[in-house]
Amino acid sequence: MGRWRNKALTEYLENEIQWIGKPNYASAFPLPSPGRVPPLPSRKKLSSPTIRSRFQRMIMEVQDSVCGALEALDGAGNFKEDAWTRPGGGGGISRVLQDGHVFEKAGVNVSVVYGVMPPEAYRAAKAAVTDQKPGPVLHPKNPFSPTLHFNYRYFETDAPNDAPGAPRQWWFGGGTDLTPSYIFEEDVKHFHSIQKGACDKFDPSFYPRFKKWCDNYFYIKHRDERRGLGGIFFDDLNDYDQEMLLLFATECANSVVPVYIPIVEKRKDTAFNERHKAWQQLRRGRYVEFNLVYDRGTTFGLKTGGRIESILVSLPLTARWEYDHKPEEGSEEWKLLDACRNPKEWV
Amino acid sequence: MGRWRNKALTEYLENEIQWIGKPNYASAFPLPSPGRVPPLPSRKKLSSPTIRSRFQRMIMEVQDSVCGALEALDGAGNFKEDAWTRPGGGGGISRVLQDGHVFEKAGVNVSVVYGVMPPEAYRAAKAAVTDQKPGPVLHPKNPFSPTLHFNYRYFETDAPNDAPGAPRQWWFGGGTDLTPSYIFEEDVKHFHSIQKGACDKFDPSFYPRFKKWCDNYFYIKHRDERRGLGGIFFDDLNDYDQEMLLLFATECANSVVPVYIPIVEKRKDTAFNERHKAWQQLRRGRYVEFNLVYDRGTTFGLKTGGRIESILVSLPLTARWEYDHKPEEGSEEWKLLDACRNPKEWV
Repeated sequence: MGRWRNKALTEYLENEIQWIGKPNYASAFPLPSPGRVPPLPSRKKLSSPTIRSRFQRMIMEVQDSVCGALEALDGAGNFKEDAWTRPGGGGGISRVLQDGHVFEKAGVNVSVVYGVMPPEAYRAAKAAVTDQKPGPVLHPKNPFSPTLHFNYRYFETDAPNDAPGAPRQWWFGGGTDLTPSYIFEEDVKHFHSIQKGACDKFDPSFYPRFKKWCDNYFYIKHRDERRGLGGIFFDDLNDYDQEMLLLFATECANSVVPVYIPIVEKRKDTAFNERHKAWQQLRRGRYVEFNLVYDRGTTFGLKTGGRIESILVSLPLTARWEYDHKPEEGSEEWKLLDACRNPKEWV
Repeated sequence: MGRWRNKALTEYLENEIQWIGKPNYASAFPLPSPGRVPPLPSRKKLSSPTIRSRFQRMIMEVQDSVCGALEALDGAGNFKEDAWTRPGGGGGISRVLQDGHVFEKAGVNVSVVYGVMPPEAYRAAKAAVTDQKPGPVLHPKNPFSPTLHFNYRYFETDAPNDAPGAPRQWWFGGGTDLTPSYIFEEDVKHFHSIQKGACDKFDPSFYPRFKKWCDNYFYIKHRDERRGLGGIFFDDLNDYDQEMLLLFATECANSVVPVYIPIVEKRKDTAFNERHKAWQQLRRGRYVEFNLVYDRGTTFGLKTGGRIESILVSLPLTARWEYDHKPEEGSEEWKLLDACRNPKEWV
């Protein structure tokens, strides 16, 4: 895995982290997970293990472990890496695997964004739009393998320069959600129960609350359906101990590999026909509709001139729209649609 | 062509037209064109040939002639027809040809919408959002055949009930634009010069003004490129004689067949390879991006609960997104992109 983080990129991110010590806000949105963690050369240089730097390190480690697990599973495709900088401050590392053996398109990004906020925005910082991006999205080829999306982020403000004693603000956001084209109950239960387990370690109210939040967030209003079968979603979370929330975000992020990889492993070679593929492509069309019309990260990114390729890497490689397509009642396609219209309790 | 307008549908639209005599606003957006015009059974019933009823008749005739020309060209696919009503008042006829021999997806809609406006909206009627839909879109299969979009509409208000003497307001809007994946200069010149000819019959300022308006309207801001090679676009047009503008809209609408059909006829069987197809699919992805993110008709329709299938019929059957795709400088793909970034004068 060492090849992921070459020297130049590491310096770049390190420098950003060092530099970030002063600015008015910093936000990071990416991906966490468990597994083999490469020894980061930056480890020794970070003198003060702030929440920010620990979160940053965590998501970089998760990027490594998720990409490693995906490559191992795919067997053919390799991630290509792009480092980019943001004119307003910050930058990121995008990794994209395209047209692999198992995955049609998998994008796994880490970014660190910082800059100066106007005082009004600082005062209402939670309402201020954070430069959020859609998180990593994994689109497999096989119609029986679900798409996965996840996104973990930490946001922090320093006091404005003209009011050095003003309180700092911070919060966590994140989530992991599953978008299958066909329902295998055991898969969906596996997915939700691991997430519930991660939540329950911290607060028994988390899973029911964040599961509902997820169902509400990934809602395609003009279709009256969710884009998939949910998972967990939370935002603006700061009414708990900060250390506890960092551990919670880490736990969720570390769950990405175990909630997802076993499902794809099981379904990646399932035989399918043209009908299954066309239905998967129609559901990918819904994915595009959600991301371009509703997703806050995408719509905000498009309007404010974010790095387009990083924002739109969440779109599937291919998608399809048929006029007035209606699955036959009782069919497998209809069952999926029904579950997207009427969210169920899976655990 | 007589089969297009079956008895039930005719009654339906007629009834709408009759009923429309009273309401506070009426807006119609569809497609006009020349050719063989079927004898509309409604012809005798319309006692007063108002601008509204003449426009309505014109767009229905254009729907017939465009669909007839497309079916004749396709040779295999047939249009399927759906009539629908709008809860707030009005309705329409959608015709969709899918997976034909020449066309991947062609949707040709006519709609009539009416209802009551709040007084503030009446007073600022041009600013009031009209229930506009994206117009007909024709997506051929062959990557060397361009996509065509067009949309002609007429909007009219009666005086509010509480102010019978208040002035009526009305305007015309419309346009026809071409979206190729590859540039054949003779095709683009053919397209633009017929449109210029149609404009020049009425006012020499029309073509330059509406050509520029079109380039500005179909702009994908986050890509800094237009979705295609333009055409003409106009809206809120009421500062000319009303009769003249009806004739102008009719002329433009009647140009749809001659500007487009000869191009597809010439290119529909051109040999192509996978690279050409993939590029066409990437350009279709841009089409989706424009329609879902920027197109006023689509975004308004999605937000206000319009008939989703009619609104999204404009989307291509299939589309594609590759991460960070950049055509090689000087290639045919690059030339198209360059023309989408730097609009040219074609005539």
